[in-house]
Amino acid sequence: MKNITPYRVIYGDTDQMGVAYYANYLRWFEIGRTEFMRQAGIPYDQAEREGIFFPVTEVQCRYRKPARYDNLLWIETTLESLSPVAVRFHYRIGLEGDRTALASGWTKHACLGPERRLTPLPEAYARLLGLDGH
Amino acid sequence: MKNITPYRVIYGDTDQMGVAYYANYLRWFEIGRTEFMRQAGIPYDQAEREGIFFPVTEVQCRYRKPARYDNLLWIETTLESLSPVAVRFHYRIGLEGDRTALASGWTKHACLGPERRLTPLPEAYARLLGLDGH
Amino acid sequence: MKNITPYRVIYGDTDQMGVAYYANYLRWFEIGRTEFMRQAGIPYDQAEREGIFFPVTEVQCRYRKPARYDNLLWIETTLESLSPVAVRFHYRIGLEGDRTALASGWTKHACLGPERRLTPLPEAYARLLGLDGH
Amino acid sequence: MKNITPYRVIYGDTDQMGVAYYANYLRWFEIGRTEFMRQAGIPYDQAEREGIFFPVTEVQCRYRKPARYDNLLWIETTLESLSPVAVRFHYRIGLEGDRTALASGWTKHACLGPERRLTPLPEAYARLLGLDGH
Repeated sequence: MKNITPYRVIYGDTDQMGVAYYANYLRWFEIGRTEFMRQAGIPYDQAEREGIFFPVTEVQCRYRKPARYDNLLWIETTLESLSPVAVRFHYRIGLEGDRTALASGWTKHACLGPERRLTPLPEAYARLLGLDGH
Repeated sequence: MKNITPYRVIYGDTDQMGVAYYANYLRWFEIGRTEFMRQAGIPYDQAEREGIFFPVTEVQCRYRKPARYDNLLWIETTLESLSPVAVRFHYRIGLEGDRTALASGWTKHACLGPERRLTPLPEAYARLLGLDGH
Repeated sequence: MKNITPYRVIYGDTDQMGVAYYANYLRWFEIGRTEFMRQAGIPYDQAEREGIFFPVTEVQCRYRKPARYDNLLWIETTLESLSPVAVRFHYRIGLEGDRTALASGWTKHACLGPERRLTPLPEAYARLLGLDGH
Repeated sequence: MKNITPYRVIYGDTDQMGVAYYANYLRWFEIGRTEFMRQAGIPYDQAEREGIFFPVTEVQCRYRKPARYDNLLWIETTLESLSPVAVRFHYRIGLEGDRTALASGWTKHACLGPERRLTPLPEAYARLLGLDGH
């Protein structure tokens, strides 16, 4: 499964070098995984209401070419299982009309239950997210 | 009572016009009122733990001259009472070593109690905040 | 003329009160006016390339009801002329499927030319933006 | 050489999970490296005026424990040379009074000259930054 979501770079995303500030890519990663989960049938706000949280435990991002003001970007998101209690989302971000990625990266997430303790990803979630081996 | 707090403009605050993006001034207003309340003896996190919330209901900001990367700013905050259930903070922001304001503005806040309903500002708070007429 | 643009509230927009942080509405105002100008035929990046800048000189926002995580919002933007060298955008922001505004506000902008000095709004712009009296 | 700089978490840094949103740590990394460079005698705005830019080409951050509203954090920054045209800053972030890191990470930077092309780090910079092997 793969999700592709558009994002338009705003003026507030840029910095004085004339390109998008590096922290904003992590906001775009969030947009990607939110839409991935919605597409999978688990809107993240519903997950939270069901007492399942996916806090980020690690992030990496590689910046190849800068995104600029008013660029229309695509955010491509995929998911892999790391263990019963951890998942990793992968992201590629690029310009509309060009398959080359400007930036790519990943986020690792713990799966927490209602008490905010590590908990195995619910089976129904694993199935909907297309994760094997659960 | 008056609070003056410093803030250093970071690269992530700037935009491609080479100046601080306009929304960031509202973050700086927040810094000002947080330090104002701490100085008054009511750290805002303590207020929240006591079930008192001050959500912003209105904001105005006038931008006279731009703040730039690495500028060391001062944020000056004062407070006035508007009614038993509403207060207004006033802010002036300027460059270190210069009393002229680059920007000024205010925020109006409702006073909410534990149920998130309008509630009169607790008397102990009004006293500490130096508000008369409560 | 009127522009209506959607925006999906992300997790990074929220704060620990469980609602969108107040400064983010100014980012949404920016989205609204950018799309307004694109609809009028003057994409803002093109304006900047032509040496015309519209820095914000003043903003006001009134917050009536909070926007929350994953809310799908509409941003409605209109424009009025204030003088030959200043314009004001008006904004209303609400939830999809509900015409009531959660928040509303305006931004005042100076019109600056290539030297970053006050300059009358170019006539071609005024016409495209639907402004009379220019 | 090592720089330690304080940062106070603001309300706008938090999200509805009640902790600092993950992208904000990259802003704090920026604060750390800015103060590192100032301490080394190369304020970054001066570097830019001299035509030297250090855009981020890669970032990694590991989140161990959350930072919360009003936490007073320390940001510890160190630097290593990777090649004549690339450096890496390392960061640890923790709570005042506790040497354990809540989060840690690094950023890789290219060294660009006035034309925004890869250029060897100027020798005077390498010396001030305490980098060997240049």
